[in-house]
Amino acid sequence: MAGEFALIDRYFARPTPSAVLGPGDDCALVQPTPGKQLAVTTDMLVAGTHFLADTDPRNLGWKALAVNLSDLAAMGATARWVTLAGALPAADAAWIERFADGFFACAKEYGVDVIGGDTTRGPLNLCVTALGEVEPGRALRRDGARPGDQIWVSGRPGLAALGLAQLQGRVSLPEPWPRLCIAALEKPRPRLALGQSLVGLASAAIDVSDGLLADLGHIAERSGCAAAVRLVQLPQLRDLVGSGERYDADLRRLALDCQLAGGDDYELCFTVPAARSPEVAALAAALELPLWPIGEIVAGTPGTVEVFDPDGQPVDIARRGYDHFG
Amino acid sequence: MAGEFALIDRYFARPTPSAVLGPGDDCALVQPTPGKQLAVTTDMLVAGTHFLADTDPRNLGWKALAVNLSDLAAMGATARWVTLAGALPAADAAWIERFADGFFACAKEYGVDVIGGDTTRGPLNLCVTALGEVEPGRALRRDGARPGDQIWVSGRPGLAALGLAQLQGRVSLPEPWPRLCIAALEKPRPRLALGQSLVGLASAAIDVSDGLLADLGHIAERSGCAAAVRLVQLPQLRDLVGSGERYDADLRRLALDCQLAGGDDYELCFTVPAARSPEVAALAAALELPLWPIGEIVAGTPGTVEVFDPDGQPVDIARRGYDHFG
Repeated sequence: MAGEFALIDRYFARPTPSAVLGPGDDCALVQPTPGKQLAVTTDMLVAGTHFLADTDPRNLGWKALAVNLSDLAAMGATARWVTLAGALPAADAAWIERFADGFFACAKEYGVDVIGGDTTRGPLNLCVTALGEVEPGRALRRDGARPGDQIWVSGRPGLAALGLAQLQGRVSLPEPWPRLCIAALEKPRPRLALGQSLVGLASAAIDVSDGLLADLGHIAERSGCAAAVRLVQLPQLRDLVGSGERYDADLRRLALDCQLAGGDDYELCFTVPAARSPEVAALAAALELPLWPIGEIVAGTPGTVEVFDPDGQPVDIARRGYDHFG
Repeated sequence: MAGEFALIDRYFARPTPSAVLGPGDDCALVQPTPGKQLAVTTDMLVAGTHFLADTDPRNLGWKALAVNLSDLAAMGATARWVTLAGALPAADAAWIERFADGFFACAKEYGVDVIGGDTTRGPLNLCVTALGEVEPGRALRRDGARPGDQIWVSGRPGLAALGLAQLQGRVSLPEPWPRLCIAALEKPRPRLALGQSLVGLASAAIDVSDGLLADLGHIAERSGCAAAVRLVQLPQLRDLVGSGERYDADLRRLALDCQLAGGDDYELCFTVPAARSPEVAALAAALELPLWPIGEIVAGTPGTVEVFDPDGQPVDIARRGYDHFG
């Protein structure tokens, strides 16, 4: 069994062209871009809480980085540098190699350097800190939404939660949905290009990690407003749940629940002044990423999110997202 | 039991005057000082590996931050901002409150803001990332030692390991050593002022986390040199091990082992060109911190550290420090 330092060197010390000094010293050194602000985020992933213990380590490596880059995306930042700390039950070289493959694949895809880290023995735990850069005063925050702003969400929120239900045997999705939903769960795509494009356009943004309603609630709370979501404007899943005689009511209920309260999608939910909606539609075309106007910010008790059915009637939604200590 | 967000808000969201945006959004935002380089370090502490499970959470909070600030000290950086991610087996408000007290006490003592974090459920694990600033090209690195440089160490390395031995019942230290050694273990003092004073003076530096010989070996390896340590120049512990008829040979052996190979001291080990030794002695007086010249850098197989007894004969030292996967 290789020693700690040999393990780190073998799998994690790769070239870091964007750093002054990479892994191997007490600290890494980087030169911030003059005038930019630094966006900093950290996330901890624990086996059993955030991922299934038998997850392919390559997917886990990808995801451990992707969820942090997603936080940078939600601020409109450019991703620059990351550190990785990990506790592992054993120094399993094959596992570490696959994990590193996934982690560095994600780093390469989104142009970040892995500048440092820490490896230790313990129950499986992964902690990533990501650093990005943004123009002063231009970061997308949660607190800028105003009544009248349109609420948008990217991609197809809910797929990751459907993928988890499929993996856990709680549902048997029709083809080709198992593959699509499990990919959404295991290999989320941080919406960095979208976030950067929203700088100067969106009034507030958040990434959907806890569930659409819960995360939208964070925007509403920090902005001192309420939010109204219209079910009819959510991305339709007719090709999943069927229609006519093929309509599957149970699957429709599960899919809706996953759309509204399923976590782990890492899509962006954001608000835009109504007059600028055409720009969002143009952005969707430019990025080849569907963007859905799902409701609007309204005056009301800060943090409340109301959901309305196609007839405009309020819907009672029990689950509001995932709280690890709830 | 409070929800995750309430817990974080109650204990960890405190004013962050040095940040543009503190906890509560997808990222924190900070404005780097123009022209400075950023030093970045991350450390993960795991119950059972890095600390005893029944450690007072207040001490643990202090230490979780102190060990990261120590890495900034070893680069000669000014400590600025930190993030904290933690996995906890349960949302124990009393435990969290004490932990936060210790963590913020350390943050206040060394002038850093806690700008963000993540809290989740899982086996106890703490991951801190610290950001500091240093003038471009002036950071203390491990790779600058040259043959002829004197090797120095601050404080009294070994006390922390003696404290651990005391807590584990492997030794019964005479008074007043139990209190002193346990304090060194539980409440290490990151040598930030020393590190900053060494900028422009030391040719290389590292903090002693794995053990003096092991960490000195890292300097030697990265610098392409060897190191010679003279036992007679180590801080004397005569008041601990006694002398004359009171001399305790077993305790002397343990103390020497702890001095050379005990981890967790977070003193600085550094090298200085021989001609500038008087400046180090002056520094010790100014900082009221003992600094010991314990040997010199020599030409030889990179990374080797030889220890010599008072007669100049090489000593065989088996343990070289702590490797979590060794």
